[in-house]
Amino acid sequence: MNKEQMVVNAIRVLSAEAVQKAKSGHPGMPMGAASMAYATWGRQMKHNPQNPKFIDRDRFVLSSGHGSMLLYSLLHLFGYGLSIDDLKAFRQFGSKTPGHPEYRHTTGVETTTGPLGQGIANAVGMAMAERRLAAKFNREGFPVVDHYTYAILGDGCMMEGISHECCSLAGTLKLNKLIALYDDNEISIEGSTDLAFREDVPARFRAYGWNVIDVPDGNCPAPIDAAITLAKKSDKPTLIVCHTDIGYGSPKAGQASAHGEPLGEENVQLTKKALGWPEGEPFCVPQEVYEQTAEAAKRGAEAEAAWNRLMDEYAVAYPELRKEWDVWNSCELPVDLLHDDAFWAFDGKAATRNSSGILLNRLAERVPNLFGGSADLAPSNKSEMKGKGEFSAENYAGANIHFGVREHAMAAISNGIKLHGGLRPYCATFFVFTDYMKNAMRMASIMDLPIPYILTHDSIGVGEDGPTHQPVEHLAGLRAVPGLVVFRPADSRETAAGWVAAMTGDRPVALVLTRQDLPLYENSGKDALKGGYVLSDCEGAPDAILMASGSEVEQCVGAQAILKAEGINARVVSMPSFELFDAQSAEYKESVLPSAVRARVAVEAAATFGWHKYVGLDGAVVGLDRFGASAPYKVLFEAFGFTSENVAEAARKLVK
Amino acid sequence: MNKEQMVVNAIRVLSAEAVQKAKSGHPGMPMGAASMAYATWGRQMKHNPQNPKFIDRDRFVLSSGHGSMLLYSLLHLFGYGLSIDDLKAFRQFGSKTPGHPEYRHTTGVETTTGPLGQGIANAVGMAMAERRLAAKFNREGFPVVDHYTYAILGDGCMMEGISHECCSLAGTLKLNKLIALYDDNEISIEGSTDLAFREDVPARFRAYGWNVIDVPDGNCPAPIDAAITLAKKSDKPTLIVCHTDIGYGSPKAGQASAHGEPLGEENVQLTKKALGWPEGEPFCVPQEVYEQTAEAAKRGAEAEAAWNRLMDEYAVAYPELRKEWDVWNSCELPVDLLHDDAFWAFDGKAATRNSSGILLNRLAERVPNLFGGSADLAPSNKSEMKGKGEFSAENYAGANIHFGVREHAMAAISNGIKLHGGLRPYCATFFVFTDYMKNAMRMASIMDLPIPYILTHDSIGVGEDGPTHQPVEHLAGLRAVPGLVVFRPADSRETAAGWVAAMTGDRPVALVLTRQDLPLYENSGKDALKGGYVLSDCEGAPDAILMASGSEVEQCVGAQAILKAEGINARVVSMPSFELFDAQSAEYKESVLPSAVRARVAVEAAATFGWHKYVGLDGAVVGLDRFGASAPYKVLFEAFGFTSENVAEAARKLVK
Repeated sequence: MNKEQMVVNAIRVLSAEAVQKAKSGHPGMPMGAASMAYATWGRQMKHNPQNPKFIDRDRFVLSSGHGSMLLYSLLHLFGYGLSIDDLKAFRQFGSKTPGHPEYRHTTGVETTTGPLGQGIANAVGMAMAERRLAAKFNREGFPVVDHYTYAILGDGCMMEGISHECCSLAGTLKLNKLIALYDDNEISIEGSTDLAFREDVPARFRAYGWNVIDVPDGNCPAPIDAAITLAKKSDKPTLIVCHTDIGYGSPKAGQASAHGEPLGEENVQLTKKALGWPEGEPFCVPQEVYEQTAEAAKRGAEAEAAWNRLMDEYAVAYPELRKEWDVWNSCELPVDLLHDDAFWAFDGKAATRNSSGILLNRLAERVPNLFGGSADLAPSNKSEMKGKGEFSAENYAGANIHFGVREHAMAAISNGIKLHGGLRPYCATFFVFTDYMKNAMRMASIMDLPIPYILTHDSIGVGEDGPTHQPVEHLAGLRAVPGLVVFRPADSRETAAGWVAAMTGDRPVALVLTRQDLPLYENSGKDALKGGYVLSDCEGAPDAILMASGSEVEQCVGAQAILKAEGINARVVSMPSFELFDAQSAEYKESVLPSAVRARVAVEAAATFGWHKYVGLDGAVVGLDRFGASAPYKVLFEAFGFTSENVAEAARKLVK
Repeated sequence: MNKEQMVVNAIRVLSAEAVQKAKSGHPGMPMGAASMAYATWGRQMKHNPQNPKFIDRDRFVLSSGHGSMLLYSLLHLFGYGLSIDDLKAFRQFGSKTPGHPEYRHTTGVETTTGPLGQGIANAVGMAMAERRLAAKFNREGFPVVDHYTYAILGDGCMMEGISHECCSLAGTLKLNKLIALYDDNEISIEGSTDLAFREDVPARFRAYGWNVIDVPDGNCPAPIDAAITLAKKSDKPTLIVCHTDIGYGSPKAGQASAHGEPLGEENVQLTKKALGWPEGEPFCVPQEVYEQTAEAAKRGAEAEAAWNRLMDEYAVAYPELRKEWDVWNSCELPVDLLHDDAFWAFDGKAATRNSSGILLNRLAERVPNLFGGSADLAPSNKSEMKGKGEFSAENYAGANIHFGVREHAMAAISNGIKLHGGLRPYCATFFVFTDYMKNAMRMASIMDLPIPYILTHDSIGVGEDGPTHQPVEHLAGLRAVPGLVVFRPADSRETAAGWVAAMTGDRPVALVLTRQDLPLYENSGKDALKGGYVLSDCEGAPDAILMASGSEVEQCVGAQAILKAEGINARVVSMPSFELFDAQSAEYKESVLPSAVRARVAVEAAATFGWHKYVGLDGAVVGLDRFGASAPYKVLFEAFGFTSENVAEAARKLVK
């Protein structure tokens, strides 16, 4: 057996052994895809295990995240610091080798994968980022941004709708430095893919505008390596279809039962025998394997050294660009938004989507590496950065992305752009269509990726488009996501606060914005960064507290006046963000919502679900626990009880 | 102008006028697709306006739901009872003509559409239902189930991932009675589709196994009619690509600005002129138009009469099948599950997913028209009906559907199956992947479609697969959806209650089930249908109430014993469903959760969000406001505080 074949078999054996030891996991995928992985990591990929953050490295995404032992085997064998003991702790609490690969948790993992289809969309985002940065920074003789993005995906990813969305866009954008390796093993969990999946995948990808290369023997590295070499010559993204056997080498090869459970102790032994692997204890890797992978690591170190020399010369030839490079690649904003008065300046009433559009354009003047767009709703979402160009196959220097009507891919691509580094992505759609992109937002939350989501048309305020377009449960649904900040501003200045939270925090932020005009409040502003604050207090101790987010703050302010005339002291609390408010000190929270005041009314043109956290068993929520309707929005606000009088009445009842 | 052309122009003019009057809406789509609609409704479709529920009618789905005026114009012109006054009330509160078409709200609307891609997936479900029922009931000479499903979809639907999922499955299943008309107008909201969508759609659909017919002039009915005739001869589903002009006839034809706003009064006049339409007041339709549509209505009435005669003969030839027909087409269950002791019988501990699998198979013995499956997780979801066959292109008599890894399409297809009638669909996946199918679940909720969702692997109880596969926020997110029932049973008998709720109610029900074993409680059972009940009471008045859903009821029962030993009386309330509990009488709710008892602890291995409704400001929630981790599940329960001792401690603190 040659040394390369030994590395391939080492991946297979380690994967089978680790799953066996954990008594759970997915041995079939890593065993079938081992040659694909080796051809990439061992022969083609530019990567330096000594510096996993080498900025011009090729990116690698394991879209079939359940095959995590493939990645862990690679990270161990190529010297990324993952030890044999780490592999032995596969799927155990606190180990570096969890069930699915986790970004930041394990060095060398470029993105968290597991939910099928997310990874390939992340890879599309990375490839878009590479093109955008290359267009910005590369100069004749200075290809300082010049790397490939590789992804391995299987039948599961292929069936998911998100793979259609992102791959269609990748074809449209001619992302020729994206190379996807399709682990075509014709097996899914319920059995043969023939049961549910008979499409002609190569023809489908050609229809998307991809280059497709067929590799009949996907269990050998050499033809895959040759296909990658070919792919690098294409002016289109490439799909390399590798015909593989799930669980290759094991008695379960080619069977669905190889997918998601240990092979069994005896089968592991039979596998080792079949692969010509030395008998003996598990987790023993012959020295020749490491010798072979060290070659690749050496080439990677040389590649980085060459790139470092190139950058030194670049700094001399293009000193200004070199400075910009640092700004773009920094996590710090180049501006102090909090004390930038021009950023916060607003006058008069406005829809928060319009204020957001103004703020985005103010940001684009201050932050050079914003890169984003909408799922075909830019005119409605006010998400265009004016004068910043359109990103397309003909113009990778454009900063405005046309994602098409592809919400799910849009959010996952944004994750990929952020993971790549060098750019600040954002994306936009109607709030109700977060339904379509939810899992990608969850992945951003799991990975703590600070992505602003511009989500307009935030309630029955949508008006005539009716119930399918009016969010009801979406605020509650997203507020429950750990790590995600939901921010629903009540006016233009609160919208500025939302953008500041989004640009300066380390978490994704959903900016939930109105279609309809809202007033500008006298005391609104930076306090909104605390998530909740007293917008308008009463004289003397409050008899009641009226709280709301977004557009319904207006009805609270109206109710406050009505109640005042009746001698009831009501405080108005604006609550744009539960998450930011909950993170304040107990003292602050008590100062805003004194425990002693139990006559509390929360108002939101949305499901009441979740507000009891602030109003308790003794308060009331004026909300909408039904779907909306089609009518002009003012009619709906009236019909569904979002009026000052109705809010006042709710408070009156409690005070009595 | 011939009469047919007049009908086409009537659709265009009425659409433009209604949008103009409403001062909002989408004129471009109906004007561009008018000929597609007429070729279908006027020439090809088997439908009887006098009986919109004619059971063997062809189904029509407007997947581009924003083009609702197309459908309303058709319903008016063909005599479905929608008046000119209804059209004048387009998009007004309470009218029969809301912004997007709403099922049941408006006679003749087969499904609620609006969120792009949902409609085409509904259509695939309808076409699957037709094939399944035909396989069951048709006999030589008796094609009692024999109808087509038509859908009109645009570029937006084409870009959405769900269209990939459902159309790939439709090709796999060779649904040759599905005819999709693609409104290929090359315009999306942000401008030319070239910006974001350059794929070769016909090639893509051929790759899915579809028949594709190109109609260069999609603005004329005749070639579209011819294409439909051709489509009916295919053994595959057909995509008819109609090259159309958005806003046809108006000065804005072919422009993005024709999409989503009124044309303007002057442009409406210019449109009428260009189309050779009589000048004068809006909403005036020449008599010839109605004469022409009456022809189609007459043919439809004849078709139904012929079908009625066929059914009479069928009843003689196949009396048993005729009886079964009635059972299948009834909304009533053929069995009284509530009093069916064998259905409820369970012994010993079990994972609720396993109990659910047993219950599904008990149901399959009692309810003949169950039709469902999983998104490639049947072995894990326990969602197979044993011995009931597999639905495939080769066997439409099978009752088990292999949806493939296509959660979003699965849920929307299930909606289509239910909307079709004659079958009881269900579907299954991991609970965390409700993220992928959320909007289709929302549509089921909007339409009150009683669909059971089998959602297994419901918490950190998933174990080793880790955070990407462990739901956290999903219970809260779905509980906030109006009309959806979330049911998370604590043991096998509560699982039976969940299934009874799902099979006998008129709403979708999410059955949220464990991977891990749970105990069987002595007092569990039918009371679970009330959503919340006292599972284990203390002696004397309760000092504290411990409440939980699903697996965490076990920790509450454990804590109750610990507290009892300390002299603290704790009541255990099992709360499988917030929605069902909230629907009980105030007296009942007070009897379960007495207002006076404020020492309340809720326990759930999920986000705490939403539980304060029951514990208030003075109670406590033992929950999980972070993502999970990869480890054996018992380790995770311990590490994250889901232990009897921790629950007892939370109660102890409150009582003190």
